[in-house]
Amino acid sequence: MALKVQKRRRFLYEPIQLNPPQILALLFLVLVLAGALLLKLPIASEKGVSWIDAFFTAVSAATVTGLVTVDPGSTFTLFGEIVILFLIQVGGLGIMSFAVLVVIMLGKRIGIKQRLIMQEALNQPSIGGVIRLVRNLLIFSLSIEAIAVILLSFRWVPDLGWGKGIYYSIFHTIAAYNNAGFGLWPDNLVRYVGDPMVNLVITLLIITGGIGFTVLVDLWYSKKWKELSLHSRIMIWSTLIVNIISILVFYTFEYNNPHTLGPLSSGEKIWAAYFQGISPRTAGFNTIDIGGMRQDSLLFMIMLMFIGAGSASTGGGIKLTTFIVIIFAVLTFLRGKQEVTVLKRSIRTGIILRALAIATISMLLVFTGVMLLAMTEKAPFLTILFEVVSAFGTVGLTMGLTFKLTLFGKIIIICVMFLGKIGPLTLAFSIARPDKSNIRYPDGDLFTG
Amino acid sequence: MALKVQKRRRFLYEPIQLNPPQILALLFLVLVLAGALLLKLPIASEKGVSWIDAFFTAVSAATVTGLVTVDPGSTFTLFGEIVILFLIQVGGLGIMSFAVLVVIMLGKRIGIKQRLIMQEALNQPSIGGVIRLVRNLLIFSLSIEAIAVILLSFRWVPDLGWGKGIYYSIFHTIAAYNNAGFGLWPDNLVRYVGDPMVNLVITLLIITGGIGFTVLVDLWYSKKWKELSLHSRIMIWSTLIVNIISILVFYTFEYNNPHTLGPLSSGEKIWAAYFQGISPRTAGFNTIDIGGMRQDSLLFMIMLMFIGAGSASTGGGIKLTTFIVIIFAVLTFLRGKQEVTVLKRSIRTGIILRALAIATISMLLVFTGVMLLAMTEKAPFLTILFEVVSAFGTVGLTMGLTFKLTLFGKIIIICVMFLGKIGPLTLAFSIARPDKSNIRYPDGDLFTG
Ligand SMILES: [K+]
Ligand SMILES: [K+]
Repeated sequence: MALKVQKRRRFLYEPIQLNPPQILALLFLVLVLAGALLLKLPIASEKGVSWIDAFFTAVSAATVTGLVTVDPGSTFTLFGEIVILFLIQVGGLGIMSFAVLVVIMLGKRIGIKQRLIMQEALNQPSIGGVIRLVRNLLIFSLSIEAIAVILLSFRWVPDLGWGKGIYYSIFHTIAAYNNAGFGLWPDNLVRYVGDPMVNLVITLLIITGGIGFTVLVDLWYSKKWKELSLHSRIMIWSTLIVNIISILVFYTFEYNNPHTLGPLSSGEKIWAAYFQGISPRTAGFNTIDIGGMRQDSLLFMIMLMFIGAGSASTGGGIKLTTFIVIIFAVLTFLRGKQEVTVLKRSIRTGIILRALAIATISMLLVFTGVMLLAMTEKAPFLTILFEVVSAFGTVGLTMGLTFKLTLFGKIIIICVMFLGKIGPLTLAFSIARPDKSNIRYPDGDLFTG
Repeated sequence: MALKVQKRRRFLYEPIQLNPPQILALLFLVLVLAGALLLKLPIASEKGVSWIDAFFTAVSAATVTGLVTVDPGSTFTLFGEIVILFLIQVGGLGIMSFAVLVVIMLGKRIGIKQRLIMQEALNQPSIGGVIRLVRNLLIFSLSIEAIAVILLSFRWVPDLGWGKGIYYSIFHTIAAYNNAGFGLWPDNLVRYVGDPMVNLVITLLIITGGIGFTVLVDLWYSKKWKELSLHSRIMIWSTLIVNIISILVFYTFEYNNPHTLGPLSSGEKIWAAYFQGISPRTAGFNTIDIGGMRQDSLLFMIMLMFIGAGSASTGGGIKLTTFIVIIFAVLTFLRGKQEVTVLKRSIRTGIILRALAIATISMLLVFTGVMLLAMTEKAPFLTILFEVVSAFGTVGLTMGLTFKLTLFGKIIIICVMFLGKIGPLTLAFSIARPDKSNIRYPDGDLFTG
């Protein structure tokens, strides 16, 4: 039986010579191209958009980034906005889980290959139960989104009327749950800086979408804290701790800044710090002017954007668990110990190696992006670094560079968004794969450090 | 016998509870404090220096960095300059190898503990032959320095007269061989941008001092290329390739820059690019104005400063081999392979893990330094990043911030120089040490990326 599956898998693989991450990348590309075509249609925009801006918007939506070279609200028609919304939902919930949904709806059985691809999309270690998982996650996601739409409508229907109010609630709910950072107001959510309803609903959507589906499922089926997997417990703890630290940092650093928290009332100050503490790890909404923040806050924000959200979530970045593993490994090394332990569980060397590799390769990607943008754009270094890390972490925050990007700058950011979305996944897959190489070279000794 | 050594080692360790890297750090601290005291003496400076500037200069000299808060040439007397020179030579050749020299000169046998410390200082994997190695390296170093002094005198005696000419030749020879970047002219070596003798002698000293003693010894004893160790072959290849790429990058990027290569003759352009291509990986001399360079060149330079020179060399940074191991590991991961091979030798997982850990921890150190400086200093982000990486890699290049540092800024840079010098070594030691922990936790599964 296992042999048969093996053979079948090999048979399915050989004609196209693509591994799951490559297929995922290809499907993403198809989605993005289709999106760009739709956005380029005359009915999609008020006065037309260039090919590069249509493509940029499609990539930004499908990778749930939220960086925009044109203001979506005033540039695109209702049709165009729905295309964007569709790209966000498909990109955010994962092409693969979506594909499975389609297959289920069509009543077909899921083959081993589709399951493998999906397993890849969700970064799950085993195939079993993936189909059930995806069905549950879709039901759960749509339920959460429905509740959020109702809650936001209480705020926006009185403000904007029934039609526009409900539409704005749907748009921002989908964008927030998928951590996409797209907004229909040109200033994103700055006008709601002190609004409790908008702040709470949007941040809860961001956290739920960003913590990772496996954690949500785990929470759903576990009755006690102890029953949760190590991954879930680490995610919950670290999300809490990182968010609290971030809120305190922004509150302290920006308290007197006349461009950000300075002019706000004491209540608004807290809400603004709360919102900005949660949003940078991949969501990308903002209620204050990012370009007006202090250098130290911005650097802290760059770190948060680089770290990102949870594995198998709608978010990007190197992922919170990757960061946590690195921090614990570093502390272990510095204390001269060898065994890395988190919450009384030993972390295998393979996982540490993978985490360090993902972080290092991501830094190299960011470095390359910054290097290229430094050549093509005239902007301060921090602005460029911020833009590239925001694209890498599919965050969508900007210090104002996106609107001014040159053609080459746009192409670079498109590539970084694309690689930022599928890169860490591909990497996790590559490093986890067993080696098939037959040549064994003798070990060589090397001094490093 | 082995047991006796074990026991003796344990006996020696226990009363003070310090491991070799900690002893090394302590000795460094003593050297630096002694240096600061001497520089603070009235006979050391023309008009006196503050305690913080004396301490900063001592740390910068002992860590062979070359960052200066005061111009050494005009601030210090001949006595003060000789103190600096002494700190550079002692710091550069390594406190430990120097301690061994003292012990040899005093005719005492070297105990197991001293050997262990020295082994640490030289980052050597085995104790055997370390004493011979150190004696050879000192003879070799002094010979090389003597030849360089003679060659530089041909240039500087005609310019400055016998006394000053020879003194300047000695000072810059020691600074260059130890990759210390200190100069007696306020503009460093800018006035000799097109001088072949200065360019060649200084860069050859930089390369010889920076490639690592083990490579030099290996070259001395090996008759054929094949006899060289993997470490030596990688160092020679990568030094060559990285230098050539750097020279080409600076030549291309800066060719038309009116602040750097622009106004120079075509011959001077080549010399300037040649010099700047070799100097940033830890030496820290400059023949053009660093602050006038383009953003992309500066970013490239930051990368070179971070990479640094060879293990067991006078240089700093994460080390060239660390960088090469990471690049090869990344390429292996991206190709979906598991076995990392360099020059047909397999690199053990332990070495890859160590390289990635050193790079990651170094980045965290740089990040922390930049974060703190962003709080205390008013300067563009790139200037701050450049300064911190320069201090971390004990390079000594600056975009002009060092002179303007606040008191807190100076303290931060002092810490970064200190940690940059002893950090990677300590880390390499910690990670290489066998684990003594008895508690084994069960493995936990984690998704990263
Ligand atoms: K986003
Ligand atoms: K230096």
